[in-house]
Amino acid sequence: MITGKNYIGNNLSEKGNKTYKTFNPKLNIKNEYNFHEATLEEVNEAVILAHNTFKEYRNVSGTKRADFLNAIADEIMDLGDELVQTYMSETGLPEGRAAGERGRTIFQLRSFAELVANDEWRDNTIDEAVPDRVPMPMSDIRKTYIALGPVVVFGASNFPLAYSTAGGDTASALAAGCPVIVKSHPMHAGTGELVASAIIKAAERTGMPNGVFSNLNSSGIEVGVQLVSHPKVKAVGFTGSIKGGRALYDLAAKREEPIPVFAEMGSINPVIITPNAISKRGEALATTYAGSITMGTGQFCTNPGLILTIAGNETEAFIKDLAAKTTAIDPQCMLHPNIKSNYTRVGNDVTSQNGLEVVSKYEAIVADNFAPSQISTVSGTDFLINPKMHQEVFGPFSLVVRCKDEAQLVEIIEGLEGQLTGTILAEEEDYANLPEIVDALQNRVGRIIFNGVPTGVEVCDSMTHGGPYPASSDSRFTAVGTGAIKRWVRPFSYQDFPKELLPQSLK
Amino acid sequence: MITGKNYIGNNLSEKGNKTYKTFNPKLNIKNEYNFHEATLEEVNEAVILAHNTFKEYRNVSGTKRADFLNAIADEIMDLGDELVQTYMSETGLPEGRAAGERGRTIFQLRSFAELVANDEWRDNTIDEAVPDRVPMPMSDIRKTYIALGPVVVFGASNFPLAYSTAGGDTASALAAGCPVIVKSHPMHAGTGELVASAIIKAAERTGMPNGVFSNLNSSGIEVGVQLVSHPKVKAVGFTGSIKGGRALYDLAAKREEPIPVFAEMGSINPVIITPNAISKRGEALATTYAGSITMGTGQFCTNPGLILTIAGNETEAFIKDLAAKTTAIDPQCMLHPNIKSNYTRVGNDVTSQNGLEVVSKYEAIVADNFAPSQISTVSGTDFLINPKMHQEVFGPFSLVVRCKDEAQLVEIIEGLEGQLTGTILAEEEDYANLPEIVDALQNRVGRIIFNGVPTGVEVCDSMTHGGPYPASSDSRFTAVGTGAIKRWVRPFSYQDFPKELLPQSLK
Repeated sequence: MITGKNYIGNNLSEKGNKTYKTFNPKLNIKNEYNFHEATLEEVNEAVILAHNTFKEYRNVSGTKRADFLNAIADEIMDLGDELVQTYMSETGLPEGRAAGERGRTIFQLRSFAELVANDEWRDNTIDEAVPDRVPMPMSDIRKTYIALGPVVVFGASNFPLAYSTAGGDTASALAAGCPVIVKSHPMHAGTGELVASAIIKAAERTGMPNGVFSNLNSSGIEVGVQLVSHPKVKAVGFTGSIKGGRALYDLAAKREEPIPVFAEMGSINPVIITPNAISKRGEALATTYAGSITMGTGQFCTNPGLILTIAGNETEAFIKDLAAKTTAIDPQCMLHPNIKSNYTRVGNDVTSQNGLEVVSKYEAIVADNFAPSQISTVSGTDFLINPKMHQEVFGPFSLVVRCKDEAQLVEIIEGLEGQLTGTILAEEEDYANLPEIVDALQNRVGRIIFNGVPTGVEVCDSMTHGGPYPASSDSRFTAVGTGAIKRWVRPFSYQDFPKELLPQSLK
Repeated sequence: MITGKNYIGNNLSEKGNKTYKTFNPKLNIKNEYNFHEATLEEVNEAVILAHNTFKEYRNVSGTKRADFLNAIADEIMDLGDELVQTYMSETGLPEGRAAGERGRTIFQLRSFAELVANDEWRDNTIDEAVPDRVPMPMSDIRKTYIALGPVVVFGASNFPLAYSTAGGDTASALAAGCPVIVKSHPMHAGTGELVASAIIKAAERTGMPNGVFSNLNSSGIEVGVQLVSHPKVKAVGFTGSIKGGRALYDLAAKREEPIPVFAEMGSINPVIITPNAISKRGEALATTYAGSITMGTGQFCTNPGLILTIAGNETEAFIKDLAAKTTAIDPQCMLHPNIKSNYTRVGNDVTSQNGLEVVSKYEAIVADNFAPSQISTVSGTDFLINPKMHQEVFGPFSLVVRCKDEAQLVEIIEGLEGQLTGTILAEEEDYANLPEIVDALQNRVGRIIFNGVPTGVEVCDSMTHGGPYPASSDSRFTAVGTGAIKRWVRPFSYQDFPKELLPQSLK
């Protein structure tokens, strides 16, 4: 049941008078519930509670934390259709996507439960004493990883489940032993509250200390600013725009005690297509990429926004084909009117740049908040000198660059900002020539996909979802996959510790 | 041979007119050589060279990087007595310390050589494809760790070898595949140039690309500011004061592309002594700690600057004994007149605080730049309310706090800033009561030592040399031990990559 209140630990709270509603972009109307914006007092209560709870929660055993995570998964499923309907009403996304994203969220929770059910993830090492070492005896030193403290999570507009309230950041932080305070995303506050209620139920059911999780409503920036500035908060997870992520990063860096901010931000996800690939299977690639560009109305952080080709007649035909196929797909609803207006504004800024040609644009009149897709093209030379064309247009948009040769293509890759992904579409006869492209691309991205699409991010040990700035604020960590837990822990060493005082896994 | 010039890769360079000399604190005179401060042009040359070299160096095999590191160790040994004499003339430290620190430096280089001789350190993982997974096939995804790019290293005043030119930061960054630019420490520019010459010889001898290492002289802050601000620099390592480390951190955070700064900064390294330990072996502990406090004139980042006790008659006797034993040790020379004047200034600031009593101070007249040791004491109540007493007094100084009970002791620990180490001196009958102290301490430090001294940092897999801010700027990494390599790398994933294009260790 949606109450519109904040969760301060296990308790519902509504101290403030400021309320807001979420929006149904498909119906183009506001949804019914009023959400109470958290007050400064409530923010402070949630953080102090998390800080006090941390003393207990950091020592809760791995198996009990695993029980908690699995219980969250169960409780989310138990929300049943109310969650799916609320999700749809707050995003304009279809039922299948809601169910799919819920499945992914559950899988993430269970993956982290499995990970922390034993202590292997702590990479424990033991260097035994060498009492007779010359000139000095060597101490017994044992290393493990321990939790940082309360973590604040900012959910994403485009993934109300998998990258929000109980998404990858929350699941990995709870798994690590950190209490979590979620700054609820204002576009899906109802979905957020439902999921928060599931987490609270799971916490109570599995005997977790009160304050291990809080959920604070916020339609503006004040709550987020207060959370990130609070001295008892020890780390931040964020998924969203470069502007938003950078603002939080700057805030955290200015604190008396700076804290790590893991922000997963913008990316245009360059795709390199060799002339051989176009020649051999250009039509199939155009079909696949028309689907990838428009999937989820292009609202994925791994959406292929930049396609790099070598100029030529077959390339020209491929671009026309890709454009026609993309704009033949019916427009879909965007998440929110603000996201639609950003799509239009940034899209216009990019397409108004010198040398850029719009190849195809969905021209029929679309419903409010629906996004017409668009394919543009530009020469490598014009692209190289104009960083405005590197902007992410969040939506069903892609820019095809026609490079004059491979040297120019490599130069373009080297000049790109950091990216989450890079994709190479190539034939076997290209392999001998690829190392230079792979090498340049590897230096700019977190993951290279070969003959596939960048959309779709597997949750597994080997996933890297992150990359050089501004793809993420700290490229040394991944936001997806079991490695994501490493963001919330630090190494810790015991020197010459009595066995009886060591944690079980280090004995 | 010391030339006073900068190394821009393999070439000596002296474009600027500004020169400076190092100082012999023992003789209280300037040393003979003139060092040429690097110009903005030289800074830029070194960075561009490192950036260009990174393309080649990141792909140099692990075995070749290991050869390079081992060759650096050999070349440093080949510097022979010139290095030892220069070291002594620039630090006032004795010959044994020079030789010992050189041995440690060599050991670090060889440890990282051994680490990267194969690719195990990259924590490679493979998730194999599941083509028949429902509803979507699972891709083949393989993860490794790759180098970040050019790293700038700021050496420490107190470790001209082990934490400077070819110290842990440089060794771990070169091992990871990152070119290194050292901002030479102005207090030991001659030692730095000699070590730099050894690195350059090793680079040439093992066929490393030119620019894999540069050494820039600098007596002010301009060179460091330019280096950290340069867009082609991708990470920073620093060992030194909180003020210096924080300035670099702030600078890096303000860049268009923020970069990681791993700064190992200040620490007062709390030592907890139980009444039982004082009762059973107070005299032996006083002897051991008088040695630890004055070792290296107290100029260690792990120097025990704060001793927490429970008030009582035996504690009073212990404090007097510790004070007498500490000040009975003859004063030693500090590294530089500036370090001596800081010692006096900060020491006076701490000891002038309300409630603090100086128990014993070396009173005889000491030579210029020699530091009289000092032991003070204060009640737990006075300490709790006055953070000025938490300041690090870099030198042979320690403050003993008399807590009224264990609860106050735990409260004091919880209120401390982040620390590199914490030490517990206790008897077996204390074990049952220790978990609360261990837990509180663990949340404030990177390493706990049991019944030992915090000075002395082993180079091994299990070492954590780092801790919550301000002990280090990023507690998620260690500065010492093989784990230090993780500061300079990021995860990277290959998705559905053809075997022939994968790196050897991921095939």
